[in-house]
Amino acid sequence: MDIRVQKVFEGLYALEDLRELHRQALPTGLDPDEEALYRAKLAELEGIVADLKSGTGEPKVTRIAGTIELRTREEQAINIQPIQAAGRLTLEARKAVISYGDGYSTCDACRKPFRLDKICKPPIASFHEELARFLNMDQARVVPGARRGFQAVTSSLVNPGDPVIVSALAHYTEFLAVEQAGGLVREVPLDPKNLVTPEATARKIEEVIRETGRTPALVMIDHYDYQFANEHDVAGIAKVAHQYDIPFLYNGAYTVGVMPVDGKALGADFVVGSGHKSMAAPAPSGVLATTDEWAPQVFRTTGMVGDVTSRKFGIKEVEMLGCTLMGANLIAMMASFPTVRERTAHWDEEVEKSNYFIDRLLAIEGSRVLSEYPRKHSLTKVDTTGSFDLVAKTHRRKGFFLSDELSSRGIVGEFAGATRTWKLNTFGLSWKRIRYLAETFTEVAEKYRIPITPKVTP
Amino acid sequence: MDIRVQKVFEGLYALEDLRELHRQALPTGLDPDEEALYRAKLAELEGIVADLKSGTGEPKVTRIAGTIELRTREEQAINIQPIQAAGRLTLEARKAVISYGDGYSTCDACRKPFRLDKICKPPIASFHEELARFLNMDQARVVPGARRGFQAVTSSLVNPGDPVIVSALAHYTEFLAVEQAGGLVREVPLDPKNLVTPEATARKIEEVIRETGRTPALVMIDHYDYQFANEHDVAGIAKVAHQYDIPFLYNGAYTVGVMPVDGKALGADFVVGSGHKSMAAPAPSGVLATTDEWAPQVFRTTGMVGDVTSRKFGIKEVEMLGCTLMGANLIAMMASFPTVRERTAHWDEEVEKSNYFIDRLLAIEGSRVLSEYPRKHSLTKVDTTGSFDLVAKTHRRKGFFLSDELSSRGIVGEFAGATRTWKLNTFGLSWKRIRYLAETFTEVAEKYRIPITPKVTP
Repeated sequence: MDIRVQKVFEGLYALEDLRELHRQALPTGLDPDEEALYRAKLAELEGIVADLKSGTGEPKVTRIAGTIELRTREEQAINIQPIQAAGRLTLEARKAVISYGDGYSTCDACRKPFRLDKICKPPIASFHEELARFLNMDQARVVPGARRGFQAVTSSLVNPGDPVIVSALAHYTEFLAVEQAGGLVREVPLDPKNLVTPEATARKIEEVIRETGRTPALVMIDHYDYQFANEHDVAGIAKVAHQYDIPFLYNGAYTVGVMPVDGKALGADFVVGSGHKSMAAPAPSGVLATTDEWAPQVFRTTGMVGDVTSRKFGIKEVEMLGCTLMGANLIAMMASFPTVRERTAHWDEEVEKSNYFIDRLLAIEGSRVLSEYPRKHSLTKVDTTGSFDLVAKTHRRKGFFLSDELSSRGIVGEFAGATRTWKLNTFGLSWKRIRYLAETFTEVAEKYRIPITPKVTP
Repeated sequence: MDIRVQKVFEGLYALEDLRELHRQALPTGLDPDEEALYRAKLAELEGIVADLKSGTGEPKVTRIAGTIELRTREEQAINIQPIQAAGRLTLEARKAVISYGDGYSTCDACRKPFRLDKICKPPIASFHEELARFLNMDQARVVPGARRGFQAVTSSLVNPGDPVIVSALAHYTEFLAVEQAGGLVREVPLDPKNLVTPEATARKIEEVIRETGRTPALVMIDHYDYQFANEHDVAGIAKVAHQYDIPFLYNGAYTVGVMPVDGKALGADFVVGSGHKSMAAPAPSGVLATTDEWAPQVFRTTGMVGDVTSRKFGIKEVEMLGCTLMGANLIAMMASFPTVRERTAHWDEEVEKSNYFIDRLLAIEGSRVLSEYPRKHSLTKVDTTGSFDLVAKTHRRKGFFLSDELSSRGIVGEFAGATRTWKLNTFGLSWKRIRYLAETFTEVAEKYRIPITPKVTP
């Protein structure tokens, strides 16, 4: 390990110590005692900088508040964890988090009408407009996670007992959002290729109407599902939903922030995205966007009146519970946004890198890809039962042998111990890192004498 | 302004730039090009350290991602903003945020049963236990803001049309949480001292039962309200609620994290706290704690089964929508926790400082305090209609004269332009800063020839 990673953290922390002295001082400046502490801490910082220059030194800080280990996996390794890849903060987001960490940091200049999405400084109001435009929807709100976006919609549209159409690959948070609203999930079965089709959706809607006598209140489908990251024909499904006058929720947890998403072109009544999954923002964060048609319902403002005081809070939105992300998470999402918007334009290259790695993995004999192939996404489910699992069967570390081999070469994020079916995500890795990743798997395979048969490209 | 504040931020950002190089490099180390960039950035950092030593230099970085200004008010000034005081991050929390900013940063070691509050590394599971003990309740969950705690309870307990008893000083998020569940708020009127009493609560419950034929589904009262931060007899109110077999929700947005809260002693069925308001954590964050009696209802796990796949997600809690704060917000709350727990033991001193300042303000003739007095809290509503507002009447800057005078002396956070009734919070200010704050108000009063009559202590 490069000691400099450790020293970068120690430098950051020494500067936070200095910052704290400013926070405790009078506005007129530091007093002599504080100046003495400042000088001592600066001397420490100089030592850290010297270590950074020479690449020397011993770790001095290993825990925060006594119990929390430093998290340095993104600096020390290549992280292929399936859900973490596109939620890594950008450099700008990390700077934002440093500046805006304090609780209500977004609220310094909150003025009438006192709602987060109306604040102009920092430019939160214009960010909301950009976000809506980015998704080609009419209105957008930030929410504490995609799940809270689902909840706002189900809570507005689903009455107790109402069926809601989801996919057989629906994420559990969709189940919960429907359950929380008192509805019932009804799954669209998959075709033999593990895809949800418009035809199957139509059949399911018919079946539900026939059996329950109720038209489903909502169709919510993941563009790319969390299991295989297969692409489902959401535009076709939206069209089917609309033929039955059912609104369509586009679950973009794996798309919004990594690839272009045009809500109107897709026929979405609602677009939900995840900040911490795909928009390089801290958790919990996300976005819910909708059309002018549905906004009055899902973003409806409170109608409650105090019976004694006659108080009204007219501008506050019921499903948002007023303001949503009043601090670092929003500012970090905003700070990442220029980068995030730009990166969606290069999605084809992310897919190319994904396929490059998968092809190299498939060259390791006995390996399979369970997701659709060629890949259309950076998240992939693979099956190494015929390759690495054969080694695990006789290895004293069992499946952990693979984690050991990978982590000793600086690869982390595969599910530790799993050598049969597992998922990985290559999003955001440079070509240099992608090649290293592929090399590493090849190297491990060679070490255990698993034959390598490179794919023959005609 | 002390240029060093600016340079501390620039130092932090230069280190983030270095960190980014590690993030882009191969696990085997930086390549020659990266090393060259590293050296250049290190040289820049050395310049910043030199500026920090000499207190010289010009600001070089003023915005993040081009549009977001650095937020330095906590370093440059004394901030008396009413809702920000106890949500300021501790030093440890700021270090945690630096390390754990990435989206799903808490989830590196998520293993069966795959739920946030069961994760052992970082020690999230034990933190949940500590949190429950801290509040003397049986079980606790972190939530994205106190409002999401209210929502989980109302959503579980309140059926459409059910009345819910709140106070005439209830926060708007309580209104929204009831409305979102389909319930109706019914306010307990205040006594002449702006207090909610057990007697008035009993009368209100009787009245609601008489008028609607329904027993209220819930009583939810703020221990200290957001308007005056008056203390309400929540223990007495809980007793009344229980006489009618109504569960009691203790709203501790202004107490949990700043003063000792013993949920069982108070008779609370639910304790809700706010991370960004009172627990030195980033927004959105909060806590919902309950008893073993109510946990099965409010923390009920999902019962939904996929009709096609037979999938079940049995351990996921419906009202939590599964996991809640999967990143920096939780880790920062945990990092602040030792400090937060300790500071609740010194609440009496916070109250003493609050009274010290208020007494000095009251010495400025014509000033009044609208909150109960002597103060029992660090948040106070004051009325300076008879003092500073008289100046504002003839000043060309109107009410903004006061903001100008304060900010030029390093005091921020009063509501800009307000010189009649306004709120302030002295929480967390050292004695040195409290005295400075009081001096500043006195100085401004003297400048405008408002008479000062010190309170005579017998």
